[in-house]
Amino acid sequence: MKAVILLSGGLDSSTVLYQAKADGYECYAISFDYQQRHRRELQSADAIARCANVKEHQVVSFDLRQWGGSALTDDSMDLPEHRCVDQMSQDIPITYVPARNTIFLSFGLSYAEAIDAQALYIGVNALDYSGYPDCRPDYIQAMQHVFELGTKQGREGQTIKIVTPLIDLKKTAIIELGNQLGVPWEQTWSCYAGGDVACGVCDSCQLRLAAFAELGLNDPLLYQNQNFR
Amino acid sequence: MKAVILLSGGLDSSTVLYQAKADGYECYAISFDYQQRHRRELQSADAIARCANVKEHQVVSFDLRQWGGSALTDDSMDLPEHRCVDQMSQDIPITYVPARNTIFLSFGLSYAEAIDAQALYIGVNALDYSGYPDCRPDYIQAMQHVFELGTKQGREGQTIKIVTPLIDLKKTAIIELGNQLGVPWEQTWSCYAGGDVACGVCDSCQLRLAAFAELGLNDPLLYQNQNFR
Repeated sequence: MKAVILLSGGLDSSTVLYQAKADGYECYAISFDYQQRHRRELQSADAIARCANVKEHQVVSFDLRQWGGSALTDDSMDLPEHRCVDQMSQDIPITYVPARNTIFLSFGLSYAEAIDAQALYIGVNALDYSGYPDCRPDYIQAMQHVFELGTKQGREGQTIKIVTPLIDLKKTAIIELGNQLGVPWEQTWSCYAGGDVACGVCDSCQLRLAAFAELGLNDPLLYQNQNFR
Repeated sequence: MKAVILLSGGLDSSTVLYQAKADGYECYAISFDYQQRHRRELQSADAIARCANVKEHQVVSFDLRQWGGSALTDDSMDLPEHRCVDQMSQDIPITYVPARNTIFLSFGLSYAEAIDAQALYIGVNALDYSGYPDCRPDYIQAMQHVFELGTKQGREGQTIKIVTPLIDLKKTAIIELGNQLGVPWEQTWSCYAGGDVACGVCDSCQLRLAAFAELGLNDPLLYQNQNFR
């Protein structure tokens, strides 16, 4: 059995890759170089793919800066910083990249169909203040319907299943799951800022650090500013 | 009002662009360089975009040869040739590119959301022996649902509408429509083979030539082999 795993190199998608392995799949990772601000994550994706000993790791390159529309693809927009976790609302944040998960899932679907895979794993999470429209269960269900109707496999009754192991988990539960699965956290990357060392103050770093702190665990990643340690 | 138009440079998408103009939209064209075999079409897309005087023309580059799976993205697979129109069945042909329209629509959606467009035009056609799963009405409806749920705009009740002016038209009707709209056929490109002159024998050339012939019209494009003229 083969599975494609959308791997950003972050905490969530790395956990999902290890979950796919634990579920018995031969793993094919796919990452995206979309000229994102936090391109350091691509190195992490490569490292995690090697650690997990995937069968193949595809990196698809394109440029979402062509039209921007997000703080992650437009350097003139500032990243939110120094927000405590309880200051993050359920609003859609400016780090939302228009239709990003739809693009990622589409490429994942193409790859999965070409290699005749049965499943596509994605680390979306509808909790933890993400607010992203393309991380919610009803959206995933709509994409599953596209998978059924928009492919040769689907039309022949062999739909590639979208698997979302983290969709209902809090960040602390994801870390506990990753610990059980042996995810090498020091190889992962969550920071939005894209420097060589995680900033510690963007929303993504804050969420991660808060979750490790809540569990009384040490995040082995190096940070410039560590509000929660 | 703004519309994004998926523009391959072929007969269908060129007609769709002219239809969007006639519908009163400010037009933003988007084309895809996916390392397809018939890359000559990208020159046509550029020419048509200029003829139609679009506001902007984005070309997104990525490489679908990374995993192939289609005669259009894998040179080791032969294109079907010399098939009369009545030899083409409703089977899914080997020129089907896994999830291609899903990828195209996803990028179109991202672009449309970033520029705050109201509509996305695509020249899919469910008739004329295409057999492609991602050209059928139920698939388009599924993607429309993704547009509603997977974007900020959609969640805020301002869904980008997918417009498919050609979905129920025969190729002859598309040519009649294009003639009314003033589409410069000599600038378009339909051939799958990707040379400097259209081959005249691939399925796509055969369909086009047969339709012009049926209408008693002259296709102004130059062909190497012209079975129907």
